[in-house]
Amino acid sequence: MKLSNYPIRTRKETPKDTDSKNASFLIRGGYIDKLMAGVYSYLPIGLKVIKNIENIIRQELDNIGCQEVLMPVLSPKENWQKTDRWDNLDVLFKMVGADDQEIALNPTHEEIIVPIVKGMNISYKELPLALYQIQAKFRNELRVKSGLLRGREFLMKDLYTFHATEEELDKFYEISITSYKKIFDRLGIGDKTVVTCASGGTFSKYSHEFQTISESGEDTIYLCEKCQEAVNKEIISENNKCPKCQSNDLKEKKSIEVGNIFKLKDKYSEPFGLKITTKDGNEVNAIMGCYGIGVSRVMGAIVEVLAEENKIVWPEEIAPFKYTIISLGKNEKAEAVYNELNKSASVILDDREDISAGQKFADADLIGSPHRIIVSEKSLASGGYELIDVKTKNSEIKKI
Amino acid sequence: MKLSNYPIRTRKETPKDTDSKNASFLIRGGYIDKLMAGVYSYLPIGLKVIKNIENIIRQELDNIGCQEVLMPVLSPKENWQKTDRWDNLDVLFKMVGADDQEIALNPTHEEIIVPIVKGMNISYKELPLALYQIQAKFRNELRVKSGLLRGREFLMKDLYTFHATEEELDKFYEISITSYKKIFDRLGIGDKTVVTCASGGTFSKYSHEFQTISESGEDTIYLCEKCQEAVNKEIISENNKCPKCQSNDLKEKKSIEVGNIFKLKDKYSEPFGLKITTKDGNEVNAIMGCYGIGVSRVMGAIVEVLAEENKIVWPEEIAPFKYTIISLGKNEKAEAVYNELNKSASVILDDREDISAGQKFADADLIGSPHRIIVSEKSLASGGYELIDVKTKNSEIKKI
Repeated sequence: MKLSNYPIRTRKETPKDTDSKNASFLIRGGYIDKLMAGVYSYLPIGLKVIKNIENIIRQELDNIGCQEVLMPVLSPKENWQKTDRWDNLDVLFKMVGADDQEIALNPTHEEIIVPIVKGMNISYKELPLALYQIQAKFRNELRVKSGLLRGREFLMKDLYTFHATEEELDKFYEISITSYKKIFDRLGIGDKTVVTCASGGTFSKYSHEFQTISESGEDTIYLCEKCQEAVNKEIISENNKCPKCQSNDLKEKKSIEVGNIFKLKDKYSEPFGLKITTKDGNEVNAIMGCYGIGVSRVMGAIVEVLAEENKIVWPEEIAPFKYTIISLGKNEKAEAVYNELNKSASVILDDREDISAGQKFADADLIGSPHRIIVSEKSLASGGYELIDVKTKNSEIKKI
Repeated sequence: MKLSNYPIRTRKETPKDTDSKNASFLIRGGYIDKLMAGVYSYLPIGLKVIKNIENIIRQELDNIGCQEVLMPVLSPKENWQKTDRWDNLDVLFKMVGADDQEIALNPTHEEIIVPIVKGMNISYKELPLALYQIQAKFRNELRVKSGLLRGREFLMKDLYTFHATEEELDKFYEISITSYKKIFDRLGIGDKTVVTCASGGTFSKYSHEFQTISESGEDTIYLCEKCQEAVNKEIISENNKCPKCQSNDLKEKKSIEVGNIFKLKDKYSEPFGLKITTKDGNEVNAIMGCYGIGVSRVMGAIVEVLAEENKIVWPEEIAPFKYTIISLGKNEKAEAVYNELNKSASVILDDREDISAGQKFADADLIGSPHRIIVSEKSLASGGYELIDVKTKNSEIKKI
């Protein structure tokens, strides 16, 4: 892409009502546009980041045998009544359709996936069945804040698995933890993201959250210095011990919940009558797990953790462009570099005329490519272009 | 993929309340699941079809310089009041949020894209600006029917272009027609899809629809035998002439509207004050075009046009799997063929045991791969596997 005709609009000022570092950076960088509180549009460069996040998640879930589906935004009241959540989920957006039927905007999809799988008449031979989607979710929050960290409309990956026994669920649950660690590593926040024991609700001892340590997080966790896992403040025991290794060397941290995994057991299969036929011909309630990652929240979390006020270095696999080429003289030489690199990588060339070098550098800081190239009279006099690893600041001159 | 652990569930019977050929076929084939009237989930094999359709559209729009964005499902009342559509669009889903603000579920996105582009401060040098998305759309219809042809929630590609003059819009409009023809050719319905003059509203003489000729269509068009374009019955003139070539050799046809393009001029830029700075420094209202393709409707239309009752041959680029391999004996040889083909194409292997050959053929008819491979004792005795071009029924024996 060439910036002379690529629709990125950077801003010097953060809009007045911006509520967080991530929203401020992403709006100034032309990644997102705020439509209303908690509702954002993804502009071309922002959608590139979202797609990069989604593709990493898809690849890793495909690797552990998951299949992608797409469920609707709308669902009928009766599905939510079956699980007692129509009246009890206070963030459920509700409306009445032209045919006087009450409709929900789905904040999660257990009430949709379970009847789908019921229609499949699954037998034990086909297990585990693991279906996921990447879809918008809706929460009718009274107040929202923190940019992409908490929205009324946001993008989630939600995976649901189906098993005949709790042992099989436990096995997949462990596989999912390994998979999630790979995902957060590739997303560039693995070193700041810890597995955290959290409430298991009324039917499991624990669920697990993936918490990214950040001062801007809404959650409080206690990080175990011994095993590097954590426990959510909500369930910390009186004796303040790590539930995993029993160490009491715990440090309080603020954090952002970027993922969670939950053993649902038969909480949702039972009300819908979703049964599995076992090897010996019995029918048992399907045993379920669910596994979420906040796709748009991850985008916000990466910015919270990695951006400085006017600058980000996106992780290698997340960057909207791997290379930003800044042309500081005539564009011909810079275009030659662009044409060569563009064959095998995503590249943006700042070929804009009538724009100062300072403005080009400032915009490159917002675009956040991990590799920056400068083509200038000075670099050409030194023998070519200057290639800078933005994170380490190492630079070298490369021949054109 | 191997059918022994791929979650396709075919059905022999069509559910009772199924309202159309496309819904009947797609539900029996395990492509979609009906959640409520006009609201469907896409199951793994169905989502593959949707993604294939989307990718063709993306490639062709990228080729004419369009950039992808993603706008929200939700929008605030005030945006719709600005264009007088809050009270006048009768299919607008409306609800009230927890903060007592009224919210719409977007049936189209002019009210969202125009303020976004206003924030970009576009100058004539950056034109044409062409932004599109693929997103769910919502229509609060009293009654819905026809499966994926008319839904309450459905997938659309919507493109919006911005220009300084009507001449520039006219130029892009012609480019879009060429692009749309390529898209519908690649979607496999180009030979049945005709450019159709339709109402231009109060501010343009005509808009143009892309109508796929089908008995199950809701629209009526008059197809000109001379120029092969058509005119929608809604605007047919009293003298019944083709608006393009003036021929009166017109044939009445039923058809499905799969796309439409519209010169909006300044209808939406004016209420939001979206101006373009021209070469001589003047500010003029942005001149806009909009261009839709019904992504999920196209999936339904392909089925209406190409499927027989129990069978489809998907177009080459749309098929969820290019090859279906039917294993009729021991699976070893079939797996060898699968492993080889799977390196370069999408393949599904029916390796299920305890299932009759008849059931395997019936399921292959629903999966609809354009190329079918049979590995049986008979084929092996003949020297390898039987490769069948399903459309022409040509078959040949290939060595394994």
